[in-house]
Amino acid sequence: MKILFLNGPNLNLLGQRQPDIYGTTTLPDIEEAVRKRAEGRAEIEFRQSNDEGELVTWIQDAADVTEVVVLNAAGYTHTSVVLRDAIAASDVPVVEIHLSNIHAREEFRHNSLIAPVCKGQICGFGSSSYILGLEAALSLKQAK
Amino acid sequence: MKILFLNGPNLNLLGQRQPDIYGTTTLPDIEEAVRKRAEGRAEIEFRQSNDEGELVTWIQDAADVTEVVVLNAAGYTHTSVVLRDAIAASDVPVVEIHLSNIHAREEFRHNSLIAPVCKGQICGFGSSSYILGLEAALSLKQAK
Amino acid sequence: MKILFLNGPNLNLLGQRQPDIYGTTTLPDIEEAVRKRAEGRAEIEFRQSNDEGELVTWIQDAADVTEVVVLNAAGYTHTSVVLRDAIAASDVPVVEIHLSNIHAREEFRHNSLIAPVCKGQICGFGSSSYILGLEAALSLKQAK
Amino acid sequence: MKILFLNGPNLNLLGQRQPDIYGTTTLPDIEEAVRKRAEGRAEIEFRQSNDEGELVTWIQDAADVTEVVVLNAAGYTHTSVVLRDAIAASDVPVVEIHLSNIHAREEFRHNSLIAPVCKGQICGFGSSSYILGLEAALSLKQAK
Amino acid sequence: MKILFLNGPNLNLLGQRQPDIYGTTTLPDIEEAVRKRAEGRAEIEFRQSNDEGELVTWIQDAADVTEVVVLNAAGYTHTSVVLRDAIAASDVPVVEIHLSNIHAREEFRHNSLIAPVCKGQICGFGSSSYILGLEAALSLKQAK
Amino acid sequence: MKILFLNGPNLNLLGQRQPDIYGTTTLPDIEEAVRKRAEGRAEIEFRQSNDEGELVTWIQDAADVTEVVVLNAAGYTHTSVVLRDAIAASDVPVVEIHLSNIHAREEFRHNSLIAPVCKGQICGFGSSSYILGLEAALSLKQAK
Amino acid sequence: MKILFLNGPNLNLLGQRQPDIYGTTTLPDIEEAVRKRAEGRAEIEFRQSNDEGELVTWIQDAADVTEVVVLNAAGYTHTSVVLRDAIAASDVPVVEIHLSNIHAREEFRHNSLIAPVCKGQICGFGSSSYILGLEAALSLKQAK
Amino acid sequence: MKILFLNGPNLNLLGQRQPDIYGTTTLPDIEEAVRKRAEGRAEIEFRQSNDEGELVTWIQDAADVTEVVVLNAAGYTHTSVVLRDAIAASDVPVVEIHLSNIHAREEFRHNSLIAPVCKGQICGFGSSSYILGLEAALSLKQAK
Amino acid sequence: MKILFLNGPNLNLLGQRQPDIYGTTTLPDIEEAVRKRAEGRAEIEFRQSNDEGELVTWIQDAADVTEVVVLNAAGYTHTSVVLRDAIAASDVPVVEIHLSNIHAREEFRHNSLIAPVCKGQICGFGSSSYILGLEAALSLKQAK
Amino acid sequence: MKILFLNGPNLNLLGQRQPDIYGTTTLPDIEEAVRKRAEGRAEIEFRQSNDEGELVTWIQDAADVTEVVVLNAAGYTHTSVVLRDAIAASDVPVVEIHLSNIHAREEFRHNSLIAPVCKGQICGFGSSSYILGLEAALSLKQAK
Amino acid sequence: MKILFLNGPNLNLLGQRQPDIYGTTTLPDIEEAVRKRAEGRAEIEFRQSNDEGELVTWIQDAADVTEVVVLNAAGYTHTSVVLRDAIAASDVPVVEIHLSNIHAREEFRHNSLIAPVCKGQICGFGSSSYILGLEAALSLKQAK
Amino acid sequence: MKILFLNGPNLNLLGQRQPDIYGTTTLPDIEEAVRKRAEGRAEIEFRQSNDEGELVTWIQDAADVTEVVVLNAAGYTHTSVVLRDAIAASDVPVVEIHLSNIHAREEFRHNSLIAPVCKGQICGFGSSSYILGLEAALSLKQAK
Repeated sequence: MKILFLNGPNLNLLGQRQPDIYGTTTLPDIEEAVRKRAEGRAEIEFRQSNDEGELVTWIQDAADVTEVVVLNAAGYTHTSVVLRDAIAASDVPVVEIHLSNIHAREEFRHNSLIAPVCKGQICGFGSSSYILGLEAALSLKQAK
Repeated sequence: MKILFLNGPNLNLLGQRQPDIYGTTTLPDIEEAVRKRAEGRAEIEFRQSNDEGELVTWIQDAADVTEVVVLNAAGYTHTSVVLRDAIAASDVPVVEIHLSNIHAREEFRHNSLIAPVCKGQICGFGSSSYILGLEAALSLKQAK
Repeated sequence: MKILFLNGPNLNLLGQRQPDIYGTTTLPDIEEAVRKRAEGRAEIEFRQSNDEGELVTWIQDAADVTEVVVLNAAGYTHTSVVLRDAIAASDVPVVEIHLSNIHAREEFRHNSLIAPVCKGQICGFGSSSYILGLEAALSLKQAK
Repeated sequence: MKILFLNGPNLNLLGQRQPDIYGTTTLPDIEEAVRKRAEGRAEIEFRQSNDEGELVTWIQDAADVTEVVVLNAAGYTHTSVVLRDAIAASDVPVVEIHLSNIHAREEFRHNSLIAPVCKGQICGFGSSSYILGLEAALSLKQAK
Repeated sequence: MKILFLNGPNLNLLGQRQPDIYGTTTLPDIEEAVRKRAEGRAEIEFRQSNDEGELVTWIQDAADVTEVVVLNAAGYTHTSVVLRDAIAASDVPVVEIHLSNIHAREEFRHNSLIAPVCKGQICGFGSSSYILGLEAALSLKQAK
Repeated sequence: MKILFLNGPNLNLLGQRQPDIYGTTTLPDIEEAVRKRAEGRAEIEFRQSNDEGELVTWIQDAADVTEVVVLNAAGYTHTSVVLRDAIAASDVPVVEIHLSNIHAREEFRHNSLIAPVCKGQICGFGSSSYILGLEAALSLKQAK
Repeated sequence: MKILFLNGPNLNLLGQRQPDIYGTTTLPDIEEAVRKRAEGRAEIEFRQSNDEGELVTWIQDAADVTEVVVLNAAGYTHTSVVLRDAIAASDVPVVEIHLSNIHAREEFRHNSLIAPVCKGQICGFGSSSYILGLEAALSLKQAK
Repeated sequence: MKILFLNGPNLNLLGQRQPDIYGTTTLPDIEEAVRKRAEGRAEIEFRQSNDEGELVTWIQDAADVTEVVVLNAAGYTHTSVVLRDAIAASDVPVVEIHLSNIHAREEFRHNSLIAPVCKGQICGFGSSSYILGLEAALSLKQAK
Repeated sequence: MKILFLNGPNLNLLGQRQPDIYGTTTLPDIEEAVRKRAEGRAEIEFRQSNDEGELVTWIQDAADVTEVVVLNAAGYTHTSVVLRDAIAASDVPVVEIHLSNIHAREEFRHNSLIAPVCKGQICGFGSSSYILGLEAALSLKQAK
Repeated sequence: MKILFLNGPNLNLLGQRQPDIYGTTTLPDIEEAVRKRAEGRAEIEFRQSNDEGELVTWIQDAADVTEVVVLNAAGYTHTSVVLRDAIAASDVPVVEIHLSNIHAREEFRHNSLIAPVCKGQICGFGSSSYILGLEAALSLKQAK
Repeated sequence: MKILFLNGPNLNLLGQRQPDIYGTTTLPDIEEAVRKRAEGRAEIEFRQSNDEGELVTWIQDAADVTEVVVLNAAGYTHTSVVLRDAIAASDVPVVEIHLSNIHAREEFRHNSLIAPVCKGQICGFGSSSYILGLEAALSLKQAK
Repeated sequence: MKILFLNGPNLNLLGQRQPDIYGTTTLPDIEEAVRKRAEGRAEIEFRQSNDEGELVTWIQDAADVTEVVVLNAAGYTHTSVVLRDAIAASDVPVVEIHLSNIHAREEFRHNSLIAPVCKGQICGFGSSSYILGLEAALSLKQAK
């Protein structure tokens, strides 16, 4: 079984900018931690894009490569009807994750347009949100 | 290390009413599953109350018995400033969990008054939300 | 057949305060009038509580003692998601009643959080609202 | 004593369309049930109109034929300032009734423009709402 | 020159109901006062209807009989897009009048849907609003 | 097969007022163009009314004379719950049309109360909206 | 009897700027027209100020010099709680006038903060609004 | 004369948690300071509860033990219709106090549901708010 | 004459996912149906993209290849100021179409950001919306 | 030590107008009562102005003459960003007071623009609000 | 050519209060810097007032002394309809400037009432906003 | 020193479409004017893209090529959380510019999502906004 982790815009900067706020953990660091945790239970693939259209296409084609998607849509979370429609049209369940607790930030980040079409939401645990996303994905698979 | 799971109103009914919607898993069933998963890693205590004041008092006194609280505040999530104030005043970090994806339900359930003072939020994974809450609690402890 | 009348906060004061506004009829007076009207058709039980949690518990346990609940939730009508959840989870139909016409009062009383999960609403007829609540409960029973 | 039941737009269709939703009871069926219940206590008159202006005129002239009006304003409930003004200007008390629980339907049906000038509101009990409207009308008469 | 005064719903009741609030002046009394004031300056015609459609038709046909319309649309002021469209489509200028100061009443009366397509608005001067409406109409005619 | 075109308030004025805005095409002109286009495919009937109640009654009785209604509700589009209820209760599918692009006009015209109960909406193509309404009606019939 | 006309900010510019929009009539021209119309019926005094505090003081002291105030508060109409409080505290009735139809202009001009404490409102008739204001003031005096 | 100080949820924690924000003054410290200031002028009683229902009951029974209530409703200030109803039904005047300036905190704390039924509000002076509350209570007693 | 049909995100999935909701008709099927209907009247070109920027560029360059654009912007309809600006800047008229009746779906789909700059809107007729879009495009061309 | 009491617009009228509502106590009466209470503890200065700019200047220059300002901004409370900016820029702490309970009056009086930059707020105790303001000012001085 | 810089309330305090936030540059310092930059290109005049009415008068009379106004309206930016009307009535173009980025501050500072009638807006560059305002004014003059 | 000018969607059309509104100046014309003005003070680079993702990437990589970015985000200004996040994460200060006065256009253009994370905003001066943007960028550099 393969679990696909899709990462939205600006997540490629993780650990390189504003280390006092976001720490020094990079996206590859997180990928490695997730891979280690998944060992023997699932194969892991990480992708990142700043492009709304590319993320939509990845969701559309997810069924070919995975049984569950773990998605950190970053800034598109709050504005992309298009991503929502792609998730709703897909047969692959999607786990929504965020590094920060979006409900404790600016008002415009409280509302997630994609939440109603995702299985569930995990946010606020920093890079551990990815580990929890992995565990959630595995539990979804078992529940099938 | 002990992890305290606090359960709000109506969760005592779990598995007894509307099995077609909520399934037949009861709160004790969940407690047992959590305990099994926690084996060797943490001691588990489960409490449930329909009473806002009692939940507030449990949060106030949590520091005496635990290092992390996992809280399913149920209906009080959306209306209780009082619970929010208790969490904000406490030194114990709180993990907010929900069985259902609250962002996919009625509009008045989208806003969580307690979210901004909790560490993070996990919702939508059914009884697995409790297992993920346990994992989140353990990762918070490691991060200290 | 027994019909359970649940009365929320401050209704214990009825007829004792502000007689120029609310009249001199007390809750026991109303109970007696309802009992008389119900004679030979149903047994009546009246309870009152200022406590949200206690009202929730009464709703949860209602199925053990009654076929229909008549509920005057008073101030909790507009703020209690918790009461709404209890009613939604119960198999016993609930008739919502109010002494005053809540739609003719302050804006924040126009919206009833529990209305969408009750069978119907009766308001504005003073103590006659209880008599009408009884009749509604009896008609619900017949319709079964 | 005569009680006037005024029925707004589309209620003439009752029982003829969408029987799976609204049942097969027609407005004449309801009229008969009300008349039977009222026997020996009040005379009953039923009228129906799709026309806002005609309903206004009936309210204006109600004092000539009745002591209480029972009004199911249907769709005009939510849009007619004109009907509200007619009720407010009339000396005859008006009981507002609805077949369905309007508070459990679309948002635009939650607000009743006429409620603040009616004595009280009864909704959600199907055709029993008419019987309860009759009882409310009779209790209003006794209270005079 | 003829000036057409159109009166909306419930204005036929003027002076007959709630004399403590609205006084005892009837619509015919007002008509007479207006006619007297207009003497030698303009011919006066008064019409009243409870019917939105009839008022629309009168506005549509106004050009055949008058140079200016003085309109008290009463309750339709706040709800009738249809009346607004009729006024906008007409070549005859319309003076909007109200007996009461609508801006000092319930919130839903503050907004006039027809105001943006009328020449101007006069409200709050009781039956004198009609005299001022006449004067406004005459000044509009002079300005042509 | 007959297709019924119902026209709401003020549409009788088409082509007679404000020719610089609405052109000189009258409603009978449009009727003729529609009839020509429909030749051999459907029989056409056009009606117009300024009266909300009459439009409601026509919708109620539409099933007796037609398989599809094409409705230009004009100003009632934005205010008539009553018309919406009539359409919802009818077995005849309704195609909503407008001469102008209502989404490009005043804010209060952006929302159509009847849209959620109509099959679809066509607006902004001037008198061609009627031709497109005819085509839509024919395609709905084929789809049966 | 004296009638005091108070003019708010920017009205001193009338007739000097943007003649294509506001015409070439100046405030002194209007004053003269009002004075002529009032001849033999009332004495007229005109004042103008750009200063909110000065306008408040004039309202406070109005009772010493007049029986009725005619007020064109211009831009302060929509923002001045202070002017409203002065009018509410005064024994002198105030007639609110505007040159333009404020209900047909920008949204923020639709709401008049002073309207609820004025006798009535006249707007949209250009300089004739002042003549109508005079007539309204005279009718208020007669009604005393 | 006795003055009753009622303290809502979480105030029992005062001085024990987050000393950097709230200081080290405890509720008993405040009680002592109030008692000292009241010496010879009034007897003082302090109570604290986390429970909405218990606070309601205390308000209901206040008339038996006091002439004025000083109430710090804490988090219930913003959510409790039930507390508001109890205050409105009571003959004892209530002085609303807060340690912090609620108007300078989160938006949801700006609105006090109980303010409209309290005599007045004092907030933002830290523990001095209690001393000012005492003085206000004494002045209310004198004013009787 | 060539008519360009531009299709936004996720429309490439049509007929492949959720056949119970959207049917089994694919975008190529629709293209063929449109082409057949257009035979002898216009040449047809279909394009699809998930990418907002690419759609913008196609609109910018449309004048080089077509006289009218028929645009199904899908999810971008409700969020893309950028697409709106491109349409507004273009000399080519745009017909807005949708498969579903967007006014009968979630609230956030009711508002179309592009509608005010398109010629008109057709929605709710399934794949027939494309045929109607073709007819609308042809009538726009004739009207030139 | 001197304490400066600044009084906003219309407060000069106190006790002279509407004695049934505001009583017969004048601003000089209040000044005297405050002075008596302050005797031996602080020197008192009272100023009043209807002018927003003058109030701003007084706040700007307050540091030259006082250690604390007690401010009744009256109607400017709800509209003056300018006064807020002056308070925020000043080193002198400001105590906000009101005669009436602004939270129990019209909606537009519930929000105080200056509250977030004042130390605290006292309202609703009539002229006693000034005495409480004095006490608050003295306690602020002690806390320095 | 002369360029008039008008400065609103509290700007006279610049550099004297809160130097840690606003720096130690005073308004005269800024004036000197602007004058130096303008040397040989334009004559500069600086004025400051806390008074809304005085600012209005300066705008009204600007045409007598300048070709362009650079305006920092400070707190009046967000509340003054009166200033807006003065700018709209003036023939002199106005450049709106702010020291701070008003769009990054409190919500009520995001909206500028005067922006729609100014040529353009410059904000957020500290005292450099004045230099940029000068450059903007010069470019406006060239463009004439 | 190099200054990077980033241009968002549709700006490539400048001067080619709607010359009556936007003039005939093209983006290369503006680039040349900026370059001339910058001569000897800074090196200039202009880029344009219709693609949100590409703009994000350019912001991410800006630190490698420039000390200040001048950004005209066009339509993305109002919808792109993603662009905002990129700017917030970057160490390079960003000057926000617009050709038109966005505060004087449609309501949805008044709010800039990126403004709170930019240094400042310049809008409304046509192509001079670019020159002012250059000056602002240079002053930011000096201030370092």
